[in-house]
Amino acid sequence: MTETAKPYRIGLLGHGTVGAAFETLLAERADAIVPITGLRPEISGVLTRSRGHYPDILAGSDMIVELIGGIDPAREHVLAAMQAGKHVVTANKQLLAQCGEELWAAAREHGVQLRFEGSVAGVVPAIRVISESLAGSHVERIHGIVNGTTNYILSEMARSGLSYEEALAGAQRLGYAEADPHEDVSGKDAAAKMAILARLAFDTPVSLDQVRYEGIEQITADDIDYARELGLGLKLIGTAERVNGGLSVRVHPVFLYGGHPLASIHGPFNAVTIESPAITEITLSGPGAGGPQTATAVLGDVVSAMIPPASVPETTQRLEMVEDVVSAFYIRLEVADRPGVLAQVAEVFGLQGLSIRSLVQHGLGDDARMVMTIHPALESKVSAALQLIGRQDFLRSTPRAIRVIDEQFS
Amino acid sequence: MTETAKPYRIGLLGHGTVGAAFETLLAERADAIVPITGLRPEISGVLTRSRGHYPDILAGSDMIVELIGGIDPAREHVLAAMQAGKHVVTANKQLLAQCGEELWAAAREHGVQLRFEGSVAGVVPAIRVISESLAGSHVERIHGIVNGTTNYILSEMARSGLSYEEALAGAQRLGYAEADPHEDVSGKDAAAKMAILARLAFDTPVSLDQVRYEGIEQITADDIDYARELGLGLKLIGTAERVNGGLSVRVHPVFLYGGHPLASIHGPFNAVTIESPAITEITLSGPGAGGPQTATAVLGDVVSAMIPPASVPETTQRLEMVEDVVSAFYIRLEVADRPGVLAQVAEVFGLQGLSIRSLVQHGLGDDARMVMTIHPALESKVSAALQLIGRQDFLRSTPRAIRVIDEQFS
Repeated sequence: MTETAKPYRIGLLGHGTVGAAFETLLAERADAIVPITGLRPEISGVLTRSRGHYPDILAGSDMIVELIGGIDPAREHVLAAMQAGKHVVTANKQLLAQCGEELWAAAREHGVQLRFEGSVAGVVPAIRVISESLAGSHVERIHGIVNGTTNYILSEMARSGLSYEEALAGAQRLGYAEADPHEDVSGKDAAAKMAILARLAFDTPVSLDQVRYEGIEQITADDIDYARELGLGLKLIGTAERVNGGLSVRVHPVFLYGGHPLASIHGPFNAVTIESPAITEITLSGPGAGGPQTATAVLGDVVSAMIPPASVPETTQRLEMVEDVVSAFYIRLEVADRPGVLAQVAEVFGLQGLSIRSLVQHGLGDDARMVMTIHPALESKVSAALQLIGRQDFLRSTPRAIRVIDEQFS
Repeated sequence: MTETAKPYRIGLLGHGTVGAAFETLLAERADAIVPITGLRPEISGVLTRSRGHYPDILAGSDMIVELIGGIDPAREHVLAAMQAGKHVVTANKQLLAQCGEELWAAAREHGVQLRFEGSVAGVVPAIRVISESLAGSHVERIHGIVNGTTNYILSEMARSGLSYEEALAGAQRLGYAEADPHEDVSGKDAAAKMAILARLAFDTPVSLDQVRYEGIEQITADDIDYARELGLGLKLIGTAERVNGGLSVRVHPVFLYGGHPLASIHGPFNAVTIESPAITEITLSGPGAGGPQTATAVLGDVVSAMIPPASVPETTQRLEMVEDVVSAFYIRLEVADRPGVLAQVAEVFGLQGLSIRSLVQHGLGDDARMVMTIHPALESKVSAALQLIGRQDFLRSTPRAIRVIDEQFS
């Protein structure tokens, strides 16, 4: 099937960070897409400012992937593609936020798909979950961290006590903020994304100028410190919610209590919480930007538009099931409190190639125990060591071992 | 369109907690589904042990929703429906984990959809995100908290220092655990769900007996205490990951470091983290069980199977945009450190109907400031109060106000 699959021709508009990442990803994953769709996707042409002729690319493509950004000429190209009966995938938030109704109407009129997961929150599947998983559900409220630049800056201010200016400069050095950061730090970028999410969740037209927004430029490190005393952490939050039968869509800096699902979203990550009386809430989180990340969102849309999967495809892999895996462990030994016990434990561990990472001794005499964590090792080695230790006369009960997923090893 | 939409007939198998919730939800949401699908969904018949005749229900339905659970007679009914060319939606994890390949093959053969979001992690959209958003992506690892009973028990043990037995009894009282909790606490339920997720993510057949599992029955409160000293929290984690070109699928109790995306999932919630080199990771979380929650997942599948949305439907709502909303606030006032200032602030707040929730005074003399939070109030009232206070001579700079989302008000 892989050999003989019919090609599916994708015209790629734009070859910046996301466009180039998408071209690479598509080439890598084409083989895996054949069994899902029955078709082999390939790039049929690339349009940039300096290369490609759009009418030729359009004529030679089954689908257009628009990654130019901005309104012109993206809008015209997308409309032309749909008029020609081609599906379109885009990651262009300004285009959707400003011209969404026009484009969706064109998609309906011409019976084509217009998919745009990458336009909001990168690879976080907010668009698909709102418009498909929750299609027909009553959404009451959406809260989102939909701008990674500001979330990174606020995370750094909280973590290191940096001023806004210092944290912004650090974000610029790391590529998390543009040289001109205005659109991100003012909340304007987040406002466009919230307009798109609100349109989909609340089935009502939302224009960009109806979204109130406020940025993070005025936030000071001591605001964050004082609020921490109150158990609160600061985020730039987009909100879209029903209010007295109407709708409010807005973006501001907000303090969240520690247990809020968005409170633990740090650094350049994005997340969206969708609330509905029937479900309490769903939270989706992941990287909000970046070439390969956004390209992954685009690829998911491309596969869906190639052929909506009627069902689960036949497996093409026969991966072997692996029995013995590497894990870090917490180990607890109830031991006799006498000299030399730790040395004996350490010797057995050493023989199996196990290495102790941390150790706390608790209690005395008949109540003595060692609680330790060990560095990752094959589980068979850990079992062997625990069996050996279990036979020692200094042990008062069976050793206990529980796996650990640790930051360093995950 | 609402008036004249053609009916779409759904045969409902099973009328337990989820079945009854689905029937209610479908009736409530039918109007909202018409503009999405062009069809009006309705229940054409209900099959339970004591009522309904399956051949009649099948003949009179466009789709079958199977919420009986277990293998027999669910398997036969689902196969019969697909053979008759009807789409099927199910929330039956045992059916998928044990007979998935047979059922998916039947769906492909008969060109029908078989959707099963509700079978894993309730309304958490793990199935759709893995098989659609990430279709064609290379998944490296999945970690999941896919059993709400055990997550609730472990959360309670950690929070209150209860023993396993006490926490289990509490879970049973609240309906989070069955009278016979074996399938949940042994890890067997989670193993079935991980088998389904692994099949989808790794495109390889995974049978239930290939999934190793270990439950939480042996966990003690002091394991949890000791590990907390090491910065670790305990969860029952399902893992499916590539290992040396093969696949490992397993369920065990695992200690997670505090920053892991699953560490903050408490109580009966479920969550799934999907890792891939291109995207770092996506995390999805939400209620893992419950009638309305699982029924919401089923409804999303039903709408998708009715007609895969070719594009965004025309809006049917024209919600009014609300400008003045209710928010809690953090307020910071740089004030002259002299008697009577707090009384004046309190008076202005009182005039606008604002109520102070917490107040901390910082600094002395020229460096004095009040940091407070206020209970939720209309933003226009807060602005008015701050404008009035801003005019007082005891104020050394413009008041600062930042919104707060607090546990009590969210």
